[in-house]
Amino acid sequence: MRASLARRIVAEFLGTGLLVATVIGSGIMGERLAGGNAAMALLANTIATGAALVALILAFGPISGAHFNPVVTAADAMEGGVLWGEAPAYVCGQVLGGAAGAVAANLMFELPIVSISQRARGGGGQLLSEFIATFGLLSVIWGCSRLRSSATAFAVGAYITAAYWFTASTSFANPAVTIARALSDTLAGIRPRDVPGFIAAQVAGGAAATLLFRWMVPALSGAAKDVVVPHKGQS
Amino acid sequence: MRASLARRIVAEFLGTGLLVATVIGSGIMGERLAGGNAAMALLANTIATGAALVALILAFGPISGAHFNPVVTAADAMEGGVLWGEAPAYVCGQVLGGAAGAVAANLMFELPIVSISQRARGGGGQLLSEFIATFGLLSVIWGCSRLRSSATAFAVGAYITAAYWFTASTSFANPAVTIARALSDTLAGIRPRDVPGFIAAQVAGGAAATLLFRWMVPALSGAAKDVVVPHKGQS
Amino acid sequence: MRASLARRIVAEFLGTGLLVATVIGSGIMGERLAGGNAAMALLANTIATGAALVALILAFGPISGAHFNPVVTAADAMEGGVLWGEAPAYVCGQVLGGAAGAVAANLMFELPIVSISQRARGGGGQLLSEFIATFGLLSVIWGCSRLRSSATAFAVGAYITAAYWFTASTSFANPAVTIARALSDTLAGIRPRDVPGFIAAQVAGGAAATLLFRWMVPALSGAAKDVVVPHKGQS
Amino acid sequence: MRASLARRIVAEFLGTGLLVATVIGSGIMGERLAGGNAAMALLANTIATGAALVALILAFGPISGAHFNPVVTAADAMEGGVLWGEAPAYVCGQVLGGAAGAVAANLMFELPIVSISQRARGGGGQLLSEFIATFGLLSVIWGCSRLRSSATAFAVGAYITAAYWFTASTSFANPAVTIARALSDTLAGIRPRDVPGFIAAQVAGGAAATLLFRWMVPALSGAAKDVVVPHKGQS
Repeated sequence: MRASLARRIVAEFLGTGLLVATVIGSGIMGERLAGGNAAMALLANTIATGAALVALILAFGPISGAHFNPVVTAADAMEGGVLWGEAPAYVCGQVLGGAAGAVAANLMFELPIVSISQRARGGGGQLLSEFIATFGLLSVIWGCSRLRSSATAFAVGAYITAAYWFTASTSFANPAVTIARALSDTLAGIRPRDVPGFIAAQVAGGAAATLLFRWMVPALSGAAKDVVVPHKGQS
Repeated sequence: MRASLARRIVAEFLGTGLLVATVIGSGIMGERLAGGNAAMALLANTIATGAALVALILAFGPISGAHFNPVVTAADAMEGGVLWGEAPAYVCGQVLGGAAGAVAANLMFELPIVSISQRARGGGGQLLSEFIATFGLLSVIWGCSRLRSSATAFAVGAYITAAYWFTASTSFANPAVTIARALSDTLAGIRPRDVPGFIAAQVAGGAAATLLFRWMVPALSGAAKDVVVPHKGQS
Repeated sequence: MRASLARRIVAEFLGTGLLVATVIGSGIMGERLAGGNAAMALLANTIATGAALVALILAFGPISGAHFNPVVTAADAMEGGVLWGEAPAYVCGQVLGGAAGAVAANLMFELPIVSISQRARGGGGQLLSEFIATFGLLSVIWGCSRLRSSATAFAVGAYITAAYWFTASTSFANPAVTIARALSDTLAGIRPRDVPGFIAAQVAGGAAATLLFRWMVPALSGAAKDVVVPHKGQS
Repeated sequence: MRASLARRIVAEFLGTGLLVATVIGSGIMGERLAGGNAAMALLANTIATGAALVALILAFGPISGAHFNPVVTAADAMEGGVLWGEAPAYVCGQVLGGAAGAVAANLMFELPIVSISQRARGGGGQLLSEFIATFGLLSVIWGCSRLRSSATAFAVGAYITAAYWFTASTSFANPAVTIARALSDTLAGIRPRDVPGFIAAQVAGGAAATLLFRWMVPALSGAAKDVVVPHKGQS
């Protein structure tokens, strides 16, 4: 039995909020403690983010599917999972949750509630990175959709752990998280003017992976309604 | 068949003891070896704590539910899991186990049996951090309560791994562990005068998550008796 | 129902490509950020590679078996898994995918499309390392072949995480990845003239493990068709 | 159907050998690359060892039970698992495998085949550490013995990851590995004269945990024949 839409949207709000709080908060903590060692700061950021994804997908997956990401919601809708009519509510929950997470991170570290990031992130290498990062993320999600539910949580957490390091952009791969990161002028931030390019590359990467897997796994659309994690209460 | 109360309390004592020994011991080792690099010391502390949680919840979950935490025990009792009459024994086992773990860590590293921590931890950012840390912890536990038992161990370990970095307080999120940390004047310590504020924030965070999940997952109370890990001997 | 050969080859191409992009890309990122700390650069490279293997084997295993490695394909064919007639197509997909992954990593970091590595890797210790690394990898794969499918993904990811540090060669253990690493003159690279020796040692190590496990696990050949991950669509 | 004794001993030999090669080899690599940063060297050693345990227990568990440790074999025999008549062969396989692993690590790094360690490891804190480390290890193994088989592999790997940092001795917790570590005068080594004390503390810790769990989990001896991992070929 699928949870009501209101419950699922609250789950998306909370999950995306805790995810963004992790991305931004661990970036702040990493930068404060690392004493200028950029690799150490990114390693802390990486381990925290990958671990948070495992925990949050396991926890919220059975309620809402644990998308936390408009590209995932759109891909899921393309394959007949979440209804197209529900998708805007999912995306709103994700974007608002992400913003709330950014505010929470700022407040925990006693920074201004919101500070617009000045961090430039652009250029061809960055955009190619976001395309590949999101292509890989959706490939992992679709590839796992026929496995036991908890495998997806570990696969996504592990994938992002890798992608923080193998892409030049540290793999945002998520429009809601990208918008939220603009709200904190700290390690994980991004200048507002660079946000649209990132989102375009993410959408393109997610669409490419979804179309490819539609061919590669013909039975996919039957499984789609359960992305990221089967959310019918059984496991 | 649930284990007898005596066996369950010993399990809570041992599990909380090994958890606190890990938190404090790895803090001492990290500080000794890191040569002043605070990020490296916290990373060692993080990896050890997250890994210990996975191991200890898998090991003691089938016996006592692997609460190791008075907030978890109280939340579990609220939802009809552990009996309210058994909860005080659980909490005693956890607090005494935590103190024993602090003593064990001190002795292994040839420090005084007990040394009261001088480390100040207070202020709004810290208290908000403890509220959010415990809110997130209970959200993860309740969210996973319908999954296979071993998923919870990984989710909790992963969550605390993230929370050490995304909160400004390094996420104590546990009154028994907070009290025990006052007994070692080392990296993981906390000044006794800061303990009550931390515990209050933790209780508030745990209660908020439990009430929210009561609405979000109506079937929750039926599953509650098995938090953190189904402890009936089957898995 | 096994996927068509074309679908499986595309899966091998994509999986090997993302794996090589991770190996090379995280090496570049690690070297750039680590400020000369070789252990930190290798740690980043290790964590990214191990995590990528977990994600990619979970994702592509149900389609193609997630070999990503000519030695694994050959061993699988020896035990009656993939047909010998299909093996050359698997290997082509892996080698081309690996080259594409090297190009992708170079482009993401705005380096020349291809730069031939100048990094010398040879001598007896290196060759012994590659023999042992591949012997261990195939032992882990064959040993897990009777477990649940997702266990193999974690076992292989964990094994390579260890092998990056316990071998003197940082454990290439894969001819397709070895060839691809020659195409990027960065941390993870290898001089073309050192490639044949590495591949010979890898083939010998893989063959030794396969022959040993044929004796040690008599039921192995019955399970072989499902290496690395059962790829019949069920799990 | 249990594997023949010869097959099981070879599995213990190989698994212990690869485990010791990881412990010693990653210590050498860590020390060489860390440039004097002791925390970084131990972190590399830790991550490699924990990951190797996960991989090796998953791989060899279905064959021999993946003890790799005379204390585990003795505890298993106490509870009616492995036959007492088979235990000496298990221990021989483990000790010889450990020695072979030390030699392999030395050769991969082009060091003398054997070099007797000069590293002093003694004193009350060290011995208490070994007692607690082995007590915890056996607690984790017995606690997990009623869970799904693959959970034990993750629990043991996670436990040792934590124990490397929370004990003052970096948690040898294994007589076969302790003896093998005397054969390499590198980071992970131990002076031969310190070996007997370590082994005595390990035996005492393992016995204490086994006796405690005999009381705490009355159904334990029925499950014992499957420690560490059910090794009947099914999972």
